[in-house]
Amino acid sequence: MTTELSALTDCIGSEMAAVDRLFSQELRSDLSCVNVLVKHVSRFRGKMLRPSLVLLWGKACGELTDAHISVATVVEMVHMSTLVHDDVLDEAELRRKGATLNHLRGNESAVLLGDYLISHSYHLCSSLESQYASRVIGRTTNELCEGELLQIENRNNLELDEDTYLTIISRKTASLTSACCTLGAKMSDASPEMIQQANVYGRSLGIAFQIQDDILDIVGDTRAVGKTLGIDIEKVKLTLPMIHFLRTAPMEHRHLLRSLLQSRELDKVEKIRNLITPSESLPYARARAQYYVDQARASLRNLPDGEPRQVLEMIAEFVISRPM
Amino acid sequence: MTTELSALTDCIGSEMAAVDRLFSQELRSDLSCVNVLVKHVSRFRGKMLRPSLVLLWGKACGELTDAHISVATVVEMVHMSTLVHDDVLDEAELRRKGATLNHLRGNESAVLLGDYLISHSYHLCSSLESQYASRVIGRTTNELCEGELLQIENRNNLELDEDTYLTIISRKTASLTSACCTLGAKMSDASPEMIQQANVYGRSLGIAFQIQDDILDIVGDTRAVGKTLGIDIEKVKLTLPMIHFLRTAPMEHRHLLRSLLQSRELDKVEKIRNLITPSESLPYARARAQYYVDQARASLRNLPDGEPRQVLEMIAEFVISRPM
Repeated sequence: MTTELSALTDCIGSEMAAVDRLFSQELRSDLSCVNVLVKHVSRFRGKMLRPSLVLLWGKACGELTDAHISVATVVEMVHMSTLVHDDVLDEAELRRKGATLNHLRGNESAVLLGDYLISHSYHLCSSLESQYASRVIGRTTNELCEGELLQIENRNNLELDEDTYLTIISRKTASLTSACCTLGAKMSDASPEMIQQANVYGRSLGIAFQIQDDILDIVGDTRAVGKTLGIDIEKVKLTLPMIHFLRTAPMEHRHLLRSLLQSRELDKVEKIRNLITPSESLPYARARAQYYVDQARASLRNLPDGEPRQVLEMIAEFVISRPM
Repeated sequence: MTTELSALTDCIGSEMAAVDRLFSQELRSDLSCVNVLVKHVSRFRGKMLRPSLVLLWGKACGELTDAHISVATVVEMVHMSTLVHDDVLDEAELRRKGATLNHLRGNESAVLLGDYLISHSYHLCSSLESQYASRVIGRTTNELCEGELLQIENRNNLELDEDTYLTIISRKTASLTSACCTLGAKMSDASPEMIQQANVYGRSLGIAFQIQDDILDIVGDTRAVGKTLGIDIEKVKLTLPMIHFLRTAPMEHRHLLRSLLQSRELDKVEKIRNLITPSESLPYARARAQYYVDQARASLRNLPDGEPRQVLEMIAEFVISRPM
């Protein structure tokens, strides 16, 4: 998706380059050991989806300003911070085709670097003239942490239902994409109605994105996706395909999935993949993702015609067709 | 110190109670699993040193306002967040006479709860009318993370010198105490000179506090101090007494300390304690702490007479006499 998304976002190319520069500049330290860590983690930066959302909504609703660049950088820092901490939580070894920081440097550095990133994101946000963005970002990270905590609370819960799953992914993933769109629109002085539609777009997009991520964790190819897969299965974090399977598959298949999830068999990921792939549960999850994509696209209807709107439409389809 | 400090801070008693209430109120969630974690971590709250500093400097320089209460709550959240993440880094089992969160619930919850606390601290800060506090807090947590990263970089570095040690503790500990005093004074509309003295007081106090903490990690009594000790030794984080010892002790003693630090002997903490205790290195470290206490006290000279100033003087002595 890296290449494809950057091709899509030509219309905000110079602003994206400015985000890149600001990102590096803000994280620069007088301590060389800090710079080494930051440099390593910068390699994980890939598709820059979240900054794109800020800039595209900003451009769709008006003129892009320095405040858009700052906020776009802030959301990328927030996102990077959650990636670094997620890898600690997941004990992941591979992220975007490189070794994860925790694998390379130990959990200590990973926890602290995540803290460093989030701290810099708030600090950059506080440099803006108004408190508006700081408030939205603070509220968003509150929600994001709650989503992660709810997810952990439900590890090993084989009774997890679809509603709770949606609450988890809405908070942990869609809260930030929603904030990106809202802030982009708000800083272009969009109307309250338009800001509300940006909010719906970002929320729906984030949910679709996460469902796709969860599908790929089961059926994706590690080389294509470029990060450790099968983690949800290993950690017994039920996702939509599994939840659907446990609700609808023939009884003996459900029993098999339950016992595989609870087992310590080395090839359980492979076995679960083979069990779920031919079932109705993947098409079901894909259809749910498509539903949210449609919702996202519908919320674009009042945006003026033009490239930003077209790209936002394409991104909505993109998040469920990507192999990452 | 808990009881003694709270006895000292009678003159800000009602404001401290307000901080307590705001702390709980801000962290309340609609998710019960989040509330359970927050409740557990609230038990670690003890001496409330940092909120006291905000309120005492605020009161010494003028009238206390709601903004003081908010900022005092913010700094306590920042502090709690670093405690929770520190315990992950240190793999500590005991904190303030209770099991640490990571020991009880695993590192995952501890990482996320630290994130939850820091997120709420920024969010509360962003609710203030001006961005001033948000900027100071953002800058402070940037510095704090750098101090922690520099410390980790120097684990196992037996050549660590006193200057680098001071840089580490100034950033990781004194940055926050300095921000507390600065913000307390600023929000009472103190003069720039007075704010600068608040800054010096907080910085010096923090350094003295951390030197004392490091002394206690070697010679303290676990029951009195109420947290796991000997961690600096276990993790080969050199602190002032050890740095001084490796510079000044008889050659064979230096060699012994070096080999003990690098060894995996089960009773190495005990042996190192017995090696350092009779040396000149503990008195040296105590004298350095006293130097910073004197510097802190001197920076109070232009404050108006009255209870807040008296208490700030007592706190300065307190941080190096405490058993915690």
